[in-house]
Amino acid sequence: MAGYGEWRCRVPLRVRFGETDAVGVANNAVYLSWFEVGRIEYLRSTGHDYAKVHAGGIDLVVVEASVRYLKPLRFDDEIDLHCWCSRLRRASVEFSYELWSRNVLCAAGSTLHACVDRSRMAPVRLPGWLVEILPADPPG
Amino acid sequence: MAGYGEWRCRVPLRVRFGETDAVGVANNAVYLSWFEVGRIEYLRSTGHDYAKVHAGGIDLVVVEASVRYLKPLRFDDEIDLHCWCSRLRRASVEFSYELWSRNVLCAAGSTLHACVDRSRMAPVRLPGWLVEILPADPPG
Amino acid sequence: MAGYGEWRCRVPLRVRFGETDAVGVANNAVYLSWFEVGRIEYLRSTGHDYAKVHAGGIDLVVVEASVRYLKPLRFDDEIDLHCWCSRLRRASVEFSYELWSRNVLCAAGSTLHACVDRSRMAPVRLPGWLVEILPADPPG
Amino acid sequence: MAGYGEWRCRVPLRVRFGETDAVGVANNAVYLSWFEVGRIEYLRSTGHDYAKVHAGGIDLVVVEASVRYLKPLRFDDEIDLHCWCSRLRRASVEFSYELWSRNVLCAAGSTLHACVDRSRMAPVRLPGWLVEILPADPPG
Repeated sequence: MAGYGEWRCRVPLRVRFGETDAVGVANNAVYLSWFEVGRIEYLRSTGHDYAKVHAGGIDLVVVEASVRYLKPLRFDDEIDLHCWCSRLRRASVEFSYELWSRNVLCAAGSTLHACVDRSRMAPVRLPGWLVEILPADPPG
Repeated sequence: MAGYGEWRCRVPLRVRFGETDAVGVANNAVYLSWFEVGRIEYLRSTGHDYAKVHAGGIDLVVVEASVRYLKPLRFDDEIDLHCWCSRLRRASVEFSYELWSRNVLCAAGSTLHACVDRSRMAPVRLPGWLVEILPADPPG
Repeated sequence: MAGYGEWRCRVPLRVRFGETDAVGVANNAVYLSWFEVGRIEYLRSTGHDYAKVHAGGIDLVVVEASVRYLKPLRFDDEIDLHCWCSRLRRASVEFSYELWSRNVLCAAGSTLHACVDRSRMAPVRLPGWLVEILPADPPG
Repeated sequence: MAGYGEWRCRVPLRVRFGETDAVGVANNAVYLSWFEVGRIEYLRSTGHDYAKVHAGGIDLVVVEASVRYLKPLRFDDEIDLHCWCSRLRRASVEFSYELWSRNVLCAAGSTLHACVDRSRMAPVRLPGWLVEILPADPPG
């Protein structure tokens, strides 16, 4: 059975000039934008892009997010963003992220998403096809 | 008849830390976000907020934007943003902007907007109620 | 002795159009930008702006951030951002945040900051003047 | 002698979710961020990255920017950003940009940059090495 490592999606990014702030490093808020890029690429890597999630009448609403900033990232730094599904429940899913640069772990974090019916914005079970593409044997 | 000066809307802003970049000044892209804040406040100042524009089934789509950057703005600088309607045509409207800080003109610019029917995304005439609230005697 | 409630700084904000995303709500990353605005206003409210922190040769580097998203915020929603110092240690300080709109708590979160010497980027004790302006009797 | 076409730098981008707004398209301010990515990649493609420009004690300050929005770009749209040097003067340089998606021109624009001495923030001549890597025979 597939383990987590096999499902880890890797996205190359580079710190944009507009993503830095006056301290000369990537602004703390930008990391959540990068995480968002990561989970969209993660879904794409499973063969199911975000448009399909939406078309199914559901949405994965962010209900929690957290970041640990370990090493500052500067303009033009190349980043290797890792994203994987770290927890799967009836009506929610958690993605985890790591930002690596020059083989150093620079940040880590996670986002928790509730599955909602878009017409009612009410929580619903994750659809079967989504459960199927996410790791089969989550630790939690 | 009302002249342009009377229609000028003024919005106080302050340069946010996340709006600066590694050079230590407000990033050039942020100015267009401020202009957007300005024209929304301009509409609100006429008693017609943007929600009303939308509810009417039309949209004012940005088709052109330009900025002249005169003096750099730094973190925490207080800005006095001026916005006014500088041109009114059958199916388009132009807004102009000035950014003042400490009584110095730091930037100026304009945006041109096409009026479109949202269902067809096709150009349409500006609705009467919108023409009415915009300056009655435009120069162009 | 002053309790926490007295030290809570309140900042009025309004969701900007550019802060929304295609789902029609404020994008999850924007919340960290608002938190940043909040803690800068908090410092200002104590009579010590961020420029003073910097001038003293230190910086308060973000090392952790977390957000709980409770209710979506939409374009033009008025927000009442609360920010307060929730924990004070030898070399770090935690700020907490709440975002209220129409008397409903829409989001909450916190950021943890390490005090660093800017020339060496090494952790140092919080300077006395900063400790003095922060709540005298923290719970943690 | 090399013509302009040979100097055109192409950068693949994809519209990020956080770059869209509540209308469901890429927000107008984001285009200037993309232009910035484009000119940095343009410099890199000449073998001289932006760090080198800075290390030389000069900066290319944005003094004007303009965008024409031709077709809306939506979340996840793949973009082919073109950037080239369109004008070279003693103390300034203009870059031009085109955003293509699915072989349709979706936006175009330009930015004008003054060359300044960073210590004095005063206009200076473009350094020889920079003139050399920019097109030898500009039209303007």
